[in-house]
Amino acid sequence: MIRLGLRTTARREFVDLTGRLQDAVRQHGWRDGVLHVYCPHTTAGVTINEGADPSVQRDILATLARLVPHRGDYQHAEGNSDAHVQSSLVGAGAWVPVEDGALALGTWQAVFFCEFDGPRSRSVWLQFAVSQP
Amino acid sequence: MIRLGLRTTARREFVDLTGRLQDAVRQHGWRDGVLHVYCPHTTAGVTINEGADPSVQRDILATLARLVPHRGDYQHAEGNSDAHVQSSLVGAGAWVPVEDGALALGTWQAVFFCEFDGPRSRSVWLQFAVSQP
Amino acid sequence: MIRLGLRTTARREFVDLTGRLQDAVRQHGWRDGVLHVYCPHTTAGVTINEGADPSVQRDILATLARLVPHRGDYQHAEGNSDAHVQSSLVGAGAWVPVEDGALALGTWQAVFFCEFDGPRSRSVWLQFAVSQP
Repeated sequence: MIRLGLRTTARREFVDLTGRLQDAVRQHGWRDGVLHVYCPHTTAGVTINEGADPSVQRDILATLARLVPHRGDYQHAEGNSDAHVQSSLVGAGAWVPVEDGALALGTWQAVFFCEFDGPRSRSVWLQFAVSQP
Repeated sequence: MIRLGLRTTARREFVDLTGRLQDAVRQHGWRDGVLHVYCPHTTAGVTINEGADPSVQRDILATLARLVPHRGDYQHAEGNSDAHVQSSLVGAGAWVPVEDGALALGTWQAVFFCEFDGPRSRSVWLQFAVSQP
Repeated sequence: MIRLGLRTTARREFVDLTGRLQDAVRQHGWRDGVLHVYCPHTTAGVTINEGADPSVQRDILATLARLVPHRGDYQHAEGNSDAHVQSSLVGAGAWVPVEDGALALGTWQAVFFCEFDGPRSRSVWLQFAVSQP
């Protein structure tokens, strides 16, 4: 399993992982299959969405914060229940198709690490499953 | 990777993919593993839910629209931020168990393409990962 | 495909599957890859989140119930549309990394069956996909 480290710089932000994922695919000689991008943290997640216009990232983060605000009727004492809930909403992992040694994303897609309780040192774990023709 | 095309006919709708997925599994001779159903679009998604009563699809779509309305405090200029957010909530892909050459879904389950910003020409990409006994 | 049965005891609750998943991985000799944990039900789901403090589970369940209440403007006649919507929000399945024959979860992570319309007899289906080094 490949572990990539990253450092987030705000409480809530998206970090575009696409370039580093492509590098890992190339480096490991992965050809045709599906790349698992796994978040081992419970106050963060991974999502695939538009990479071209940063205002999309902003709108997703702002909407999640409106639906699940930082302060609310929570019992978890650490003050980051919003981040736990948002983690389960976007999910702890995503799978990206790989074709002929390259990430096969849709035209506008990028893969984002979703930080909901930073800034922190984080990591994502990568695995590759071969697909059968 | 197999690419299936589809045409959606409304801004927001579910399209049941189950029959076409079953056909693809049979056609490619996939036997025991997991089928990846991937949405390469950033204003759509894939989900697994009840296929028997269409009112379930309606209730899911209506609830997502109530939580993330079409018009709101968004910065993305294209007027479809709701669709981007809903895409990250349901997810860009789903995995369906395949056993002995057939989709292994629960009794009430169907696999849906979730259109959040149609009508458009869309596609889903299929990959099959063999499972180890 | 491995089928694990479970019995839920409330309308809405999380059931920690982590120990049983670890047992299944060991029992089947699965070494390095990714474990698919699939929920064949349309009013339940699977999520990965914090296992240490039970108040996190409570906060996730309570927030989902606030966003998608039991009674609302639903058309599905069975009175459990909230459960169907919540199922699509957390997702019908999750994938857990397996390394050297053991679940590779983050420090605080556990894998939960999410019951949204119990109590019921439920099951989760397990498959293992080998990863390529």
